[in-house]
Amino acid sequence: MSHLSGVNAMSTTVIQHVLSRLRDVGIHDVFGVPGDLSFPLNDALCSGNGPRWIGCSNELNAAYAADGYARVKGAGAVCTTYGVGELSALNAIAGSYAEHLPVFHLVGMPPMPAQQAHSVMHHTLGNGEFDLFRQMSEPVVCASAVMTPQNVAYETERLIYEAFHHLRPVYMAFPADLALQPALGDAWPIGSARSDPVLLKRVIETIASTLEGARTACILPGFLVARAGLQGLMQTVVQASGLPFATMFLDKSVLDENQPGYIGMYAGRLMNEDVREFVESCDVVLAVGTLLTDLNTGAFSARLDPARLISIGHHQVTLQGKTHLGLEMSDVLAGLAKQIKKRQNTIAFSARTLETVRDCDNDPITAAALYSCWSRFVRPDDIVVAETGTVSMGLGFAQLPRGASFYNQGLWASIGWATPAALGAAVAAPDRRVLLVTGDGSHQVSVQEISQFARLGLKPVIFVLNNGGYLIERLLSKNPASGYNDIARWRYADLPHALGCDDWMTARVSTCGELELALRRAAVADSAVYIEVITGPDEAPPFPLHLRDYAMSMYRAQ
Amino acid sequence: MSHLSGVNAMSTTVIQHVLSRLRDVGIHDVFGVPGDLSFPLNDALCSGNGPRWIGCSNELNAAYAADGYARVKGAGAVCTTYGVGELSALNAIAGSYAEHLPVFHLVGMPPMPAQQAHSVMHHTLGNGEFDLFRQMSEPVVCASAVMTPQNVAYETERLIYEAFHHLRPVYMAFPADLALQPALGDAWPIGSARSDPVLLKRVIETIASTLEGARTACILPGFLVARAGLQGLMQTVVQASGLPFATMFLDKSVLDENQPGYIGMYAGRLMNEDVREFVESCDVVLAVGTLLTDLNTGAFSARLDPARLISIGHHQVTLQGKTHLGLEMSDVLAGLAKQIKKRQNTIAFSARTLETVRDCDNDPITAAALYSCWSRFVRPDDIVVAETGTVSMGLGFAQLPRGASFYNQGLWASIGWATPAALGAAVAAPDRRVLLVTGDGSHQVSVQEISQFARLGLKPVIFVLNNGGYLIERLLSKNPASGYNDIARWRYADLPHALGCDDWMTARVSTCGELELALRRAAVADSAVYIEVITGPDEAPPFPLHLRDYAMSMYRAQ
Repeated sequence: MSHLSGVNAMSTTVIQHVLSRLRDVGIHDVFGVPGDLSFPLNDALCSGNGPRWIGCSNELNAAYAADGYARVKGAGAVCTTYGVGELSALNAIAGSYAEHLPVFHLVGMPPMPAQQAHSVMHHTLGNGEFDLFRQMSEPVVCASAVMTPQNVAYETERLIYEAFHHLRPVYMAFPADLALQPALGDAWPIGSARSDPVLLKRVIETIASTLEGARTACILPGFLVARAGLQGLMQTVVQASGLPFATMFLDKSVLDENQPGYIGMYAGRLMNEDVREFVESCDVVLAVGTLLTDLNTGAFSARLDPARLISIGHHQVTLQGKTHLGLEMSDVLAGLAKQIKKRQNTIAFSARTLETVRDCDNDPITAAALYSCWSRFVRPDDIVVAETGTVSMGLGFAQLPRGASFYNQGLWASIGWATPAALGAAVAAPDRRVLLVTGDGSHQVSVQEISQFARLGLKPVIFVLNNGGYLIERLLSKNPASGYNDIARWRYADLPHALGCDDWMTARVSTCGELELALRRAAVADSAVYIEVITGPDEAPPFPLHLRDYAMSMYRAQ
Repeated sequence: MSHLSGVNAMSTTVIQHVLSRLRDVGIHDVFGVPGDLSFPLNDALCSGNGPRWIGCSNELNAAYAADGYARVKGAGAVCTTYGVGELSALNAIAGSYAEHLPVFHLVGMPPMPAQQAHSVMHHTLGNGEFDLFRQMSEPVVCASAVMTPQNVAYETERLIYEAFHHLRPVYMAFPADLALQPALGDAWPIGSARSDPVLLKRVIETIASTLEGARTACILPGFLVARAGLQGLMQTVVQASGLPFATMFLDKSVLDENQPGYIGMYAGRLMNEDVREFVESCDVVLAVGTLLTDLNTGAFSARLDPARLISIGHHQVTLQGKTHLGLEMSDVLAGLAKQIKKRQNTIAFSARTLETVRDCDNDPITAAALYSCWSRFVRPDDIVVAETGTVSMGLGFAQLPRGASFYNQGLWASIGWATPAALGAAVAAPDRRVLLVTGDGSHQVSVQEISQFARLGLKPVIFVLNNGGYLIERLLSKNPASGYNDIARWRYADLPHALGCDDWMTARVSTCGELELALRRAAVADSAVYIEVITGPDEAPPFPLHLRDYAMSMYRAQ
C-alpha cells in the first residue's frame, strides 16, 4: 500500500476518487457484472483512466475472480449492482473474509431521491427499504460505507486501512447520483498499526532466547504471512534461524518448497507421520500467521502443546499461553531476523514429493498415477489453483518446484471457487503460467468463466477431473452411492469450443498413455489448454481417504 | 395448503417430519446442491419417502428453480449446505421475497457440539460464530428457525403458516446431529387468517355499490391473485361483473387473455395508449393483488387517481384512500362474486396481439419479426418463462392463447433467473410444454441448468437471443457502445451437446427464413429444443425503447 502525502479529492467525482485510490493500493483490474444502478461505476471503469473493467458471466464468479486476484496482488475488487448483483457475490465475499483477503466490494445503489421516496423500483424487495443489503453484507466484511461527496475522502482512507489491517473485504456503496458528484474535502492516508516498542523488544528477546534454549525447534509459516506481504521477511527469518519448517494445508507454498529447510506438509495424523512426529516432538514450534482449522490440523488430529507453541499473528503474539496484543507481525519478524541465532544441522530429514507412478499406457488412470503426473507437470513459477475437494487434497502433498504458488480455499471450501479464482490469478499475473486443477462437480458451479480467459487472451492450463460426481462427498457420506453425489454428465472437453475459446488445445483422456501424451502436448502448447481427465468414481488420493477415517473428529459430533 | 387434524411428529426424525409436512403442502420436489453439513437432509431426500431430490449445478440456480416451481405449484423448496451453500442462494431467495413466493430454504448446519465448541471448521468464517448466516438471511425471509427435536412440531407449523400468509420464503436450519434425532411432541396446523365479518360485509357492499354507481369501471387483476391461488375466484368476479380487465407487466396471464373482457396490457404511457386512456378514465379501477412498481406503471408514468382506485390486497383493502386491515382477499372476492351486479356492453375494445410481421427469408431477424414469430409459436396451456430484459418486455405484450402462463421476474429483475426457473416450472408441470425465452447475457449467468432438463428427461423449448451483450443496458446506459455491455461470444447452439443434452433439436438462426423453419421443426419435435437466435446488437421491441425515454422518471433522479 502506497502512502501519499495527503489525498485531495476535490478535482474528481466520488467514484473516480475511489478508483484512483484503489489503483494506488495495487488494484489495476476490477471484476464485475454491469447493471443500470451501477452505470456510474461501470462508466468510470471503462473510461480508461482507472483500473480496468473485467466483465464476468455472473457476480459470484466475479467475486471469486477478485479473490484469486487478491491472492496474487495483495488486494482485489469486484463491482456489482444493487440487490440482484451484490447478493450473488456474498458467498465469495464471505470466502475472502474467512481466508483473509482484502477485496473491495463496490456496489451501485439507486439514486438518493429514489431511496428517499421509498420507490418501489426494480432490484428492490418492493418494501421501500434501501439499507437491507448493506446490512446483509456486514457479517462478511470488516467495514462498510455509503459513499457521498462529503465523506468520500476520509471514508476511502478508512476502508483501505481496515481492509489491509484486517485483511478482509470491505463494502462500498455508491448511490448512482452521488457517485457522479464532485468529491469534497481531503483526507490523509491512515498509517499502518505500530507495535508497542517496549513490549516488542521484550517479546522478540523472549522468542529468541526460547528458541536458543530449545533442544529442537521448527517453524510453521502460515498463509497470513503471504496475505500480509511478508514472505521475504519470513524467508529471512527461516534462513537466519537455520530452523526446519513444515507447512499446513492452507499455508502451502507460503515459502519456497525447494529449499533445504523444508521438511514437508504437516497434517496431524492424516499424512506424513515422520513430519508429524518431528513437529510435535519439538521443544518449540514457532507458528507464524497460521490458523488451526480442521483441514490444517488433519481433522483436529494435530497435537501442538500450547506450552511449547509460539504463535505470531498479524497483530499479536501468543507466548507461553498468553496473548500479547499490539505487536505487528512485520515488526516481530524484522526483530527476529536480526536477533535469532542460527542453528546448524537441525534438519531431521527433507521433504519428498509424491512417488512417481507410471502405469502402463492402456491402464485406466489411478489416483496415484494422476497426482504423480500432475505434480511432475508443474514448472517453476507456475501458479496452481486447486479446487476444494480431492484435487487440492491430492496435489497439496506434492512438492512444488521453485517459485511456484499453490492456492486453495482450505477454510471456506466453497466448491466452484477455483475456476474463477484462476481467472483472477491469471489477470493478476499475466506473465506466469496458471494451472487450474478442478473436479467436475466444482467446475459445473462456475464453468462460465473459462470463456473470459479466451476473451482476454490468457493461456491457462485447465484440468477437469471427471469422475461423475462429488468424490469428496462420496468419501464422507454414509452411502457413497447416494444419488445426490452424482451430477449431470457433461462432455467437458467440448466446452471450450461451445464457450468461444477458439484454438485451445483440448483433450479427453481416460488412460495413462493418453494422459501422458496430453501432458506432453500441453507442456509445449502455445495456446490455452483444457484437459478432461476421466477416472473411476472412487479414485482418491490418500489425504481425503484418511480424512474419511477421521470424519467424526472433524465434525466433533461424538 | 392442507389442514390436518393434528400433526404427531413422534414417529419420525426432525428432518423426516419437516419433509413430510412440506409434501402435505404440495412440495413434491426439492432442488439443491448437497454438502457434508447437509448430508442428513440429502439422505432423507434420497430415501424415496419424501419429496424428490433434484440436484442442480449450483445453489443460486437451485433456488431459482424452486422459485419457478413455486410459481406453478404455489410453494417450492431448496436445500443447501451451511455458509458456502446458503449464501449462494440468497439472491434467488430475495427474488422470491420480492415477488411473493413461499420458498422453503432448508439449510444443513454443523452439529451442535461443533457449534458449542466454536470449532474452526470448514464452511465457517473461522471466528467460531455459527449464527451469522441465519442473520444474513433475515431481511429476505418472513420467518426462520433452527430446528430441534423439541421445537420441530410447532416451528414447522409456524413456518408453513408464515410462508403462506406472507407468500414469502422462510429459512429452516438443521444442525446435522439434531436433524436425525426423533421429533418430540406434536402441534396443530395454524388456520388461515380470517376476515373481520362486520368490516367484510361493509367493505363488500361499499365496493359493489361504488361499482354500480360508476359510469365506467375496470379491473386490474394482479399477480398476488395467482400467488394466493385465487385465480378461479378472480375469474368468477370478472364474469359476474361483466367488467373489462387489463393487466400490468408482473401480472400478465393471471387470468386467461383469451376472453372477451380482456383489453390488453396496461403500462402507463409506455405502451397501448388506448388501454391507458380507458383505464385512467374509468370512474372506478378495481385493482386486486397488484403492485405499483416501476415496470408495472411504465416507469411511474401511470396516473391512477387514488380517489377512484379500489385496491384489494392479500390481507387488506384500500378504499377511498383508506386502508382496512383484517380483510382476506379470498373472502372479499367470494363476497364480490355474489354481490356484484353484472354490466352489459362496458367493453371499450378488445386486446390485440403483436402485429404479424413476415420479413423475407433472407432478411436478418428484426425485433418486430422475432416477437411476432415467438408470439405465434405459443400454444394453449404452454408455460412461458421470459427472462428479465428485452425478451420479456417484448413477449409480454403478445396476447397469449388459452390457458398459457407467462412468468417473468418483473420486480426483482435479476438476470439469470429464467433458465433455472424454467427448469423448476418444467419439474412442477411435466405435462405442459415449457418455453424458455432468454437473452445471451442472462443465459450466461446460469446456463448450467439446461443439463438438468436432459437428466430428468424434460423437453423444454429454449430460445436464446444472441445479440452479443446486455441489450437492455445498451438502451439505458449513457453510451450504448460501452464495453461493459458486451459479453464473451459463445456458440450457444453447441452448448446442449457439450452439456450432455443428447438428441436435442438444436438450431442457430440469423435470418427470418431460418427462424421460421426452426420454429416449424420445433413445433413438431419429439425432443427438447434449443434455438440460438442471432440479431443485430440493437434490435429491441417497443417497450424497452420507450422505457429508455422514461428512464429519468424510473430512477426519479431529477
